[in-house]
Amino acid sequence: MTVYLTRVENFNAAHQLWVDEWSDEKNMEIFGKCANKNFHGHNYKLVVTVKGSPDPMTGFVMNAKRLGDIIKTEITEILDHTNLNLDDNFLPEGIQPTSENLVIYIWKQLAPHLNNCTLHRVRLYETEKIYADYMGE
Amino acid sequence: MTVYLTRVENFNAAHQLWVDEWSDEKNMEIFGKCANKNFHGHNYKLVVTVKGSPDPMTGFVMNAKRLGDIIKTEITEILDHTNLNLDDNFLPEGIQPTSENLVIYIWKQLAPHLNNCTLHRVRLYETEKIYADYMGE
Amino acid sequence: MTVYLTRVENFNAAHQLWVDEWSDEKNMEIFGKCANKNFHGHNYKLVVTVKGSPDPMTGFVMNAKRLGDIIKTEITEILDHTNLNLDDNFLPEGIQPTSENLVIYIWKQLAPHLNNCTLHRVRLYETEKIYADYMGE
Amino acid sequence: MTVYLTRVENFNAAHQLWVDEWSDEKNMEIFGKCANKNFHGHNYKLVVTVKGSPDPMTGFVMNAKRLGDIIKTEITEILDHTNLNLDDNFLPEGIQPTSENLVIYIWKQLAPHLNNCTLHRVRLYETEKIYADYMGE
Amino acid sequence: MTVYLTRVENFNAAHQLWVDEWSDEKNMEIFGKCANKNFHGHNYKLVVTVKGSPDPMTGFVMNAKRLGDIIKTEITEILDHTNLNLDDNFLPEGIQPTSENLVIYIWKQLAPHLNNCTLHRVRLYETEKIYADYMGE
Amino acid sequence: MTVYLTRVENFNAAHQLWVDEWSDEKNMEIFGKCANKNFHGHNYKLVVTVKGSPDPMTGFVMNAKRLGDIIKTEITEILDHTNLNLDDNFLPEGIQPTSENLVIYIWKQLAPHLNNCTLHRVRLYETEKIYADYMGE
Repeated sequence: MTVYLTRVENFNAAHQLWVDEWSDEKNMEIFGKCANKNFHGHNYKLVVTVKGSPDPMTGFVMNAKRLGDIIKTEITEILDHTNLNLDDNFLPEGIQPTSENLVIYIWKQLAPHLNNCTLHRVRLYETEKIYADYMGE
Repeated sequence: MTVYLTRVENFNAAHQLWVDEWSDEKNMEIFGKCANKNFHGHNYKLVVTVKGSPDPMTGFVMNAKRLGDIIKTEITEILDHTNLNLDDNFLPEGIQPTSENLVIYIWKQLAPHLNNCTLHRVRLYETEKIYADYMGE
Repeated sequence: MTVYLTRVENFNAAHQLWVDEWSDEKNMEIFGKCANKNFHGHNYKLVVTVKGSPDPMTGFVMNAKRLGDIIKTEITEILDHTNLNLDDNFLPEGIQPTSENLVIYIWKQLAPHLNNCTLHRVRLYETEKIYADYMGE
Repeated sequence: MTVYLTRVENFNAAHQLWVDEWSDEKNMEIFGKCANKNFHGHNYKLVVTVKGSPDPMTGFVMNAKRLGDIIKTEITEILDHTNLNLDDNFLPEGIQPTSENLVIYIWKQLAPHLNNCTLHRVRLYETEKIYADYMGE
Repeated sequence: MTVYLTRVENFNAAHQLWVDEWSDEKNMEIFGKCANKNFHGHNYKLVVTVKGSPDPMTGFVMNAKRLGDIIKTEITEILDHTNLNLDDNFLPEGIQPTSENLVIYIWKQLAPHLNNCTLHRVRLYETEKIYADYMGE
Repeated sequence: MTVYLTRVENFNAAHQLWVDEWSDEKNMEIFGKCANKNFHGHNYKLVVTVKGSPDPMTGFVMNAKRLGDIIKTEITEILDHTNLNLDDNFLPEGIQPTSENLVIYIWKQLAPHLNNCTLHRVRLYETEKIYADYMGE
């Protein structure tokens, strides 16, 4: 029996969308207000789902507190109150800090830290109205 | 790598559930308060998900602003502040304006307007406690 | 010691904003899409606050279940799945069914049914982004 | 055409996570504050999804009111304002009342009561930040 | 210039409403399902508002992080994952653990720990639909 | 009869809390992660309440659409996707961009644009768990 366990954590960060190879005009045309050189920011909501079979003794797919601790240690405490373009973190240079790219790199960062269960989905809300999902393939 | 991008938009509309071929009693029995001849209404929340591979330059599966513009132009500005039974819109006559039918017709309306990425799911909240999903098949 | 107790209930209704003495053009100019002759609708959220001193035995300002029952009997079961312009309810004819007017009439309807505590505020959400409050004066 | 219909219901309950075969220390180490012998509690939010083809006349995969009634009769009215460890309900003795185990037993309880459509997913929110899903296999 | 600063924290707890001097029947009649002898529980949301004049250098009425720390140390870490009837906390014995009584005792507990600004309101959500407020008099 | 009308709008912005006259260490001590020199950001939610007597014809304290337009033109379109420290806007230089200071300056910016009704309260959510209110005095 496969059960999915989901945990939500939060971080607040600044970012900017910008392609250096493009002119200012092209950046504004493609990214609109997101290209503002002085950055803007978001309250990101990160939703991580793992899957597995509940342990017969504990009833846990995974201890939800430990899942929260891993998400905090590996992701939200690293990204919280940072600038996703400038601060030193796991997103490679030159990779746009869009929600689409962030979910892929958050997946890569989290997956090695999970054992006895499998990472199923990483969802990132950029606002209440926009979010991205990555399921590992 | 497939990433899913989701955008939420809203519209407010009146509707009524009613089958002309049935007696008033049968309509009341089947549809309950939803059969009120003077209509009732909802704040609908429309949640549209597309999928694709993030562009290496922009990091976008699709520009979320353009996705919002398409949803507004093709769906929410057409349905907002209308009567889903009486006003001229894309739901064929005789098709009940249930959330189940609405997600199918919203899918048909949206799909031709998306290129470079694929429509994955149309979700429609009728209230905070009831919603329907359609995934194209 | 005065404590305020608040209870939330919901109803879904259709309405239209329209002044018969005005031309179609003036109605459209003043009310915009809210003037659609075929009605539109909302999921209304009603938030009722009473105040009083907690009873030393029960710890209640008022039994929250009884408060919910009064709100349902006097307001939400009467207005739910109705048309606020056409259906027979407590809003006098000729009174626009705006949230501003609705909170005044909901107050008048509720106040006589409360004893041992006082009605403090009636709040009505028309959408998640627009609401009206009335505090009795 | 397969459409998914989802309905949300709520219940409030106390519980404790505890393995009798373990020492107090081991219970505290594994379950942390959840092992409190005097219990703690949650506002559970139950989200049930069924799937099927909308009926050509009614436009319903299933009458959402009937779905709500089944969820209330079979699940939430049984669990609401109870202690998930002590009170007599459908969770077998010795099965930890975790959200992971609860979704499996809620599925088993609900599935036989649905006809003309299929149970697709049972989701249970234990808090706004933690939830479990079961999809029947 | 008076500005109000509000901070939200959470705790999960079990409780029961019961008057020892009353018969079982009277307890059931007055408290309904809340009288269940095995307890039930809630995800409580605590909303604390302080007021004061923003400091000219920091722009703070009070450091929001410090406000969060005080709420956690004095209230939520004490009440989280406890039984409000049985566990040793600041609510005097014989005082019903209703939201109305809790906001009064949370106020008394918090007020002495605030300096340079004034406690304005303590709000406690017992569910998303029921909450109590106390403003100190 | 005084009725209060409230409208919610949103903007996303970057900011940093920093006092130039202080050492880096003191800034870090007072502002913690909010002092990050590369900025961080938030999804701000702005909640504006006006009060007045509903017009006998329209039932409006103020046209909610016009209130939304004023908030957008005077506040959210100016602040959206900006850096509250660096970009040219209505917050005077040297004034910390805390929520407490922002509500005061948003009040000053909005008040002159309202006629026939009075500004009652400006509320600004910085996160879902922290917000500030200003009521004009």
